[in-house]
Amino acid sequence: MKLKQLLLLSLAALAGNICLAQDIKEDFSPSVLNQPGQQYPQVNSQGYVRFRIQAPRADSVRVSLGLGGRGGTLLTKGDDGYFTGTTAGPMDEGFHYYHVNVDGGVFNDPGTLNFYGSTRWESGIEIPAHDQDFYALKDVPHGTVDQVLFPSKSTNTSRRAFVYTPPDYSKETNKRYPVLYLQHGWGEDETAWSNQGHANLIMDNLIAEGKIKPFIIVMTYGITNQLRFGHMKEFKIDTFQTVLTEELIPYIDAHFRTLANRDNRAMAGLSMGGMETHTITLNKPEIFSHYALLSGGIYTPEELKDKQKPKLIFISCGSKENPGRVKQAADELKQAGYNVTSFVSENTAHEFLTWRRSLYQLAPLLFR
Amino acid sequence: MKLKQLLLLSLAALAGNICLAQDIKEDFSPSVLNQPGQQYPQVNSQGYVRFRIQAPRADSVRVSLGLGGRGGTLLTKGDDGYFTGTTAGPMDEGFHYYHVNVDGGVFNDPGTLNFYGSTRWESGIEIPAHDQDFYALKDVPHGTVDQVLFPSKSTNTSRRAFVYTPPDYSKETNKRYPVLYLQHGWGEDETAWSNQGHANLIMDNLIAEGKIKPFIIVMTYGITNQLRFGHMKEFKIDTFQTVLTEELIPYIDAHFRTLANRDNRAMAGLSMGGMETHTITLNKPEIFSHYALLSGGIYTPEELKDKQKPKLIFISCGSKENPGRVKQAADELKQAGYNVTSFVSENTAHEFLTWRRSLYQLAPLLFR
Repeated sequence: MKLKQLLLLSLAALAGNICLAQDIKEDFSPSVLNQPGQQYPQVNSQGYVRFRIQAPRADSVRVSLGLGGRGGTLLTKGDDGYFTGTTAGPMDEGFHYYHVNVDGGVFNDPGTLNFYGSTRWESGIEIPAHDQDFYALKDVPHGTVDQVLFPSKSTNTSRRAFVYTPPDYSKETNKRYPVLYLQHGWGEDETAWSNQGHANLIMDNLIAEGKIKPFIIVMTYGITNQLRFGHMKEFKIDTFQTVLTEELIPYIDAHFRTLANRDNRAMAGLSMGGMETHTITLNKPEIFSHYALLSGGIYTPEELKDKQKPKLIFISCGSKENPGRVKQAADELKQAGYNVTSFVSENTAHEFLTWRRSLYQLAPLLFR
Repeated sequence: MKLKQLLLLSLAALAGNICLAQDIKEDFSPSVLNQPGQQYPQVNSQGYVRFRIQAPRADSVRVSLGLGGRGGTLLTKGDDGYFTGTTAGPMDEGFHYYHVNVDGGVFNDPGTLNFYGSTRWESGIEIPAHDQDFYALKDVPHGTVDQVLFPSKSTNTSRRAFVYTPPDYSKETNKRYPVLYLQHGWGEDETAWSNQGHANLIMDNLIAEGKIKPFIIVMTYGITNQLRFGHMKEFKIDTFQTVLTEELIPYIDAHFRTLANRDNRAMAGLSMGGMETHTITLNKPEIFSHYALLSGGIYTPEELKDKQKPKLIFISCGSKENPGRVKQAADELKQAGYNVTSFVSENTAHEFLTWRRSLYQLAPLLFR
């Protein structure tokens, strides 16, 4: 019985592959995230990815991205010493992490840029999204992303943050700005929202179109990665909460022209950064007035009652996650009298296109 | 005869290796450039490097760094699926690029951070230098490194630059600052001077000690990497000169509080960036007043005569490069009446410790 099931599944998979294989359009071109001059990996107009890795004396090269066995793509060795292969199906639009297994060792694809995820610098690939215009690099005025090193007594070191300032920040020298504190997910760090998320370009474009009130974004490391994945419940917020609320916020308010009050301070995070946002905003409702969880859980009316009321709650996720839960939570919060917006990113999972779109939806709602 | 020489060389090398091997101190610790939580590569107090790469089904793993055959280190496979090996001798102090050859394919060491060099993101390792204090991350006020995207009509795109602003920049809101335009070398890009060079930390430390007049540093891509290495003479400066002098400088002067005049504008570059500095300062002596070539050639009195006189010329290199040429050029310039300083970095070659030290020597001389 079990064997029969397996055989049927294999036949179905085979049929699926053949069917898909016949349909693959040969319009592959280099991924936009490739290193300078690199021709592979390539993406076609359907979202298939083709890999090509040189390893003339290797026996086996497998890429972790794809829909084949073990959730990856096994490459085939050619006479030229290159292993090549194409994903068994189209990938979701947007950004994906991956790595390459060469004879049992884990390496990055030398063709692509690296992005910090899964607590290591991973290879990245971009499947062009039909709505990619909102995070494209355009000929509009650009803000800056400033690397700051702020002193942290509680952790006895200088810590790094990236600060997005809007295009008019250097010109409007008497103007002060609201601030969004924006957190990455587990396995990532303070580079994620700029590198993978294009937060700066999303803001530049929204500002150029006059769709938002310009604000500053601060991104720092959430001190989350000492945890093993799957042990999130062991996470203690105290260390990060101290760094954020007692060290980083005062530093930012002293070094940037901020509107340094609750009404003009928001916190948002994706995935584990959403968990951090959830906990810290509930612990410190006097510090933040706008809360946003991107694929990072929900708020309930019970949690919020008897606390200073948020001016906005934003909850989002990808349609391939648990959109029902997000919508239900939003309904319950709305009924309890909160100003809440929910957003579901169509045809995306727990990945960065979900969060780029979430930021794009969130930004116009902030500090109104 | 040739064979006899080879045999003698081999014996000498063997003797050398045995001798060295006996002397290796077992005080290895993880390189400071390792990715979070990674134990390898490791460095000992003598400057030996030990590598450890997992690749259970690979036949051969070689690291490009070391003093073994083909200028690298061949690793030995253990029963645990890890390849390990130690360089045949100590490495020079400072930063080195390297990569890993796994069964004929070129990959990065998954243990370390990546740095852009040789027109790809390479693995990096740091051999602690006896004078590393001057570029250490210390508990002093830190400036910021701002990523700016500036419009470039001549190349029809937004281009990236990094701008170091001193610690007091955000406080002294009426103060204006001189600017150093600082170029990377061939194969590198605008990230090199911050990531590999620690230019920001060198500045923070010098400013904290009151040793320099604070200034801004601007680092952008020198558009050098379309050239193959060894074909430098084919390089045309026009494209980059236009971007730098007609697009970037006006942008910086419009968006940062600069002293926007020749007396307060310097240009420096390492290696190919020195060649660019040499050419552009000679083409545009009305724009820059301070010139610095770091392992990047020399000026001659003949080149400079009949042009607006520079206020300072700085020429440097590593002691393992061609220090005699640097010293001779400085003597000739001095005799011709120029204000010139030369610097030779002891026991370093064409690598980043030479250039960190050069910046440390150069900065106090600028804008006096």
